[in-house]
Amino acid sequence: MTLTYYHAEPAANSLKSMIPLKEKGLDFESVYVDLHKFEQHSEWFIKLNPEGQVPVLQHNGVLITHTTVINEYLEDVFPEVPLRPYDPVGRARVRYWNKFVDEQVMNYVSMHGWHRMVGVIARNIENGEFEKLLESIPLPDQRKKWATARSGFSEGELTHATDKIIYACAKVETQLGETKWLAGDMYTTADINFYAMCGMMVERMFPEMEVATKYPRLIAWREAMNARPGVKAALEMPDHTAPGLRTFTGHVR
Amino acid sequence: MTLTYYHAEPAANSLKSMIPLKEKGLDFESVYVDLHKFEQHSEWFIKLNPEGQVPVLQHNGVLITHTTVINEYLEDVFPEVPLRPYDPVGRARVRYWNKFVDEQVMNYVSMHGWHRMVGVIARNIENGEFEKLLESIPLPDQRKKWATARSGFSEGELTHATDKIIYACAKVETQLGETKWLAGDMYTTADINFYAMCGMMVERMFPEMEVATKYPRLIAWREAMNARPGVKAALEMPDHTAPGLRTFTGHVR
Repeated sequence: MTLTYYHAEPAANSLKSMIPLKEKGLDFESVYVDLHKFEQHSEWFIKLNPEGQVPVLQHNGVLITHTTVINEYLEDVFPEVPLRPYDPVGRARVRYWNKFVDEQVMNYVSMHGWHRMVGVIARNIENGEFEKLLESIPLPDQRKKWATARSGFSEGELTHATDKIIYACAKVETQLGETKWLAGDMYTTADINFYAMCGMMVERMFPEMEVATKYPRLIAWREAMNARPGVKAALEMPDHTAPGLRTFTGHVR
Repeated sequence: MTLTYYHAEPAANSLKSMIPLKEKGLDFESVYVDLHKFEQHSEWFIKLNPEGQVPVLQHNGVLITHTTVINEYLEDVFPEVPLRPYDPVGRARVRYWNKFVDEQVMNYVSMHGWHRMVGVIARNIENGEFEKLLESIPLPDQRKKWATARSGFSEGELTHATDKIIYACAKVETQLGETKWLAGDMYTTADINFYAMCGMMVERMFPEMEVATKYPRLIAWREAMNARPGVKAALEMPDHTAPGLRTFTGHVR
């Protein structure tokens, strides 16, 4: 068996499938993809993933992309340390939450992250260079996102994104009043998803949301997440981001 | 075992989980939810689904929402007539395509459908009545969508949506040059998803796209879908939409 994980820093998407790999104690080769050098749009990487996005899992020659798909795959192939219940109703709950995070949370936290970090990076690129960079991005939507990040997202877009994040935190807070973890009494990929995409950094990124005061159960859950061996191990992976650009850990506004 | 399916007309989301129920030959109670009377926002329905959206599957008292989650659940519980492969790589391909349709296709066809149909319905409601209707909609985003449908989506939004649909048709056309069905050589929930959300009506809704000329494999695939016993049976379910409002079947522009 050969297992290779192509990923960037331990945050957001790259963290989301790193945690299951670590929780399951799987032996895998880690290949770092340097987003600061736009390696995700480079020729060698596009051969792996024509969509030009990290992370990618390669297992016995087969390539799997998109973290929610990767995480279901890991459950199907390596069920020994389960992060998904065995019963169909439990699985439906996990999938409901993963869908919610994928469609209603991820892009909105990401927009704030891009606005703060990618905007800085994009504005530091000379005009001609930037056009060349855009041409190398395979997905039309990603090209637009880069162009927008350079000019800056609008106040309306950012406010809408903030509203979505507040809605998500309130929803998670309510759920954690009913169950120990997001999808029930078991720690699952749903928790890992919300943690990597929002929960781990929401308090640091948005101090004005008063997360600790308004969502105390979310904070207690985040601490329980921080204590998970797989989360700890995943967060110990190298972070090459310049400290001044670490928006996902809250350093840049 | 009791199985109940709460649904509207046989198109889009309501069709998407109706087809697997029919393909599997399951005995279920069909409960029609009248979207023209806003039953999806009514008290009895909100008790079933606090998000106020069709369809809902009820199985032995458990409620499952969101069609992709429902369709995975049906595979987990009723695998006898499989619409998802047994091998993990095959499952990953099905999930990749379902994610693509859910995130990159559905909302864009839906926007054109809303623009044509819901806009007409919403503009026929008196001002005071419309405010009351908005108040009864539980999800903030759905409230916004109704308000926008009444005032009309912008040209920019509609053009972006059209671009996304063209991108999806081209992607499907390429895939069908490599495999018989979307996720491989097996007919799966990925085909059902793209069919219900785009494939069945794209040619009729967008004659200017010249679908038959540009995407001949998509048309051949659509005909193969139309011939599926489960698809036929699902499409025979009653359609209460006034003929002049049947945007998803292409009657209204």
